[in-house]
Amino acid sequence: MDGTRVFLANSNQHINIGKETHSRNGFVYVKNPHLDLMEEDILYHLDLGTKTHNLPAMFGDIKFVCVGGSPNRMKAFAQFMQKELGHEGEDNDLKNICAGTDRYSMYKVGPVLSISHGMGIPSISIMLHELIKLLHHAKCCDVTIIRIGTSGGLGVEPGSVVITDVAVDSFFKPQFEQVILDRVVTRSTELDQDLASELLKCSGKDFPTLIGHTMCTYDFYEGQGRLDGALCCFSNEKKLEYLKRAYNAGVRNIEMESTVFAAMCRLCGLKGCSTIKI
Amino acid sequence: MDGTRVFLANSNQHINIGKETHSRNGFVYVKNPHLDLMEEDILYHLDLGTKTHNLPAMFGDIKFVCVGGSPNRMKAFAQFMQKELGHEGEDNDLKNICAGTDRYSMYKVGPVLSISHGMGIPSISIMLHELIKLLHHAKCCDVTIIRIGTSGGLGVEPGSVVITDVAVDSFFKPQFEQVILDRVVTRSTELDQDLASELLKCSGKDFPTLIGHTMCTYDFYEGQGRLDGALCCFSNEKKLEYLKRAYNAGVRNIEMESTVFAAMCRLCGLKGCSTIKI
Repeated sequence: MDGTRVFLANSNQHINIGKETHSRNGFVYVKNPHLDLMEEDILYHLDLGTKTHNLPAMFGDIKFVCVGGSPNRMKAFAQFMQKELGHEGEDNDLKNICAGTDRYSMYKVGPVLSISHGMGIPSISIMLHELIKLLHHAKCCDVTIIRIGTSGGLGVEPGSVVITDVAVDSFFKPQFEQVILDRVVTRSTELDQDLASELLKCSGKDFPTLIGHTMCTYDFYEGQGRLDGALCCFSNEKKLEYLKRAYNAGVRNIEMESTVFAAMCRLCGLKGCSTIKI
Repeated sequence: MDGTRVFLANSNQHINIGKETHSRNGFVYVKNPHLDLMEEDILYHLDLGTKTHNLPAMFGDIKFVCVGGSPNRMKAFAQFMQKELGHEGEDNDLKNICAGTDRYSMYKVGPVLSISHGMGIPSISIMLHELIKLLHHAKCCDVTIIRIGTSGGLGVEPGSVVITDVAVDSFFKPQFEQVILDRVVTRSTELDQDLASELLKCSGKDFPTLIGHTMCTYDFYEGQGRLDGALCCFSNEKKLEYLKRAYNAGVRNIEMESTVFAAMCRLCGLKGCSTIKI
């Protein structure tokens, strides 16, 4: 699906506002004419800003961004990258760049940025807005972003890794509905297929790896068919029937961030992929 | 608005499934018949469980729960409560009860529980499911829950506190749409009016306090009319026109958690209120 469809709330009126994906010499770009008119851009939730920090000097060499829900895990991932890239000696004391706020944690190891995003679409969306502006201000080029994490699997062996080709919503549709003021805009959630194939080639024999659809919900309990939330009004049979339909629609895992992640990467020139362990 | 309306995805069919609010001798209750059949209930994101922890002994005396987005702020609030309740001597070393996970932070000071919930509806929703089960397992009775925090104001003096009477969505409707499997269920978002009046009476002269509607969005940037996100396709005029309509609909502040907070408190017998500083 290309382009963006806008429909007005409480109506069925749809407006095509054009194809949203195109390349601009590999630069990460914002789609906001107001930003150029601002004297200063403060990235509130990252505790960074264009006047207080030299963003090109701090981040200009970034080529890979890895994002995941938990701050501890993203620190552990950065430590792993230090070892992998032989950066251990240079910077033993890995510094949380966003230490001035407790909203997100961020670590940089050479060309790799590791950032936490909390749980759910709204939480990762705030981080992505500010990350994309950060990469734009820093004049980063040809950036690949990979979401890493764990999730529930669907008909997939435990321990497998699912590489997402497209994120779908609770109704198995490959779209993300963004409310802008009180309009609902439908955005495509297709991820970079070349990157997905490339990552599949990298997989070893330690665990099964496959490409599949990832379903993204707004809720961990009622939305994902769990029977152990504070609220549950469906039977085990209804749950299984729903999950079977999801499987038949190509869904191989379920999590809570992939649709907005795919939509925003696609709109802003970030080569994005999601690799989730079951 | 009472009761719950269910409509099937992709149709206009609505089903009334009855009034959802009623009291059960003041106990916090779950609405899930499956829980009674489970040998153990693990509260994954709180790192607590019915077999690993004596929940009634740990939490049975809880009467007030205060929730807010930031872990640091909820620790600071617990420290403030220690001073207010004269508990300083007893437990100087305030312990994070959820230290085994970095998803949420939780502190207990006498009958007061202070918990962080992260940012956005999905994040607070996970916490509320597990908190409600915790209070249920601990046999807590007559519990009042108050969301505290900061937010953007609408036609309100900076420094004011808005006490929410009802949470509304981006279309100014007093409802929360919960996706259950692939059905959409509409839930009421009215908060406890007596509690709101009681809190208003407690306000001093240090800052203006008022009762008003709180608008809850899924997004901090495009959804709240901000001109400084990575994506923005509306003009300043469109933004102001939208915010004016919100004001005329009774909205006095905008944040990202209140609709699901109101809906879940109402369904599970928690006297809930939201007090947000502008």
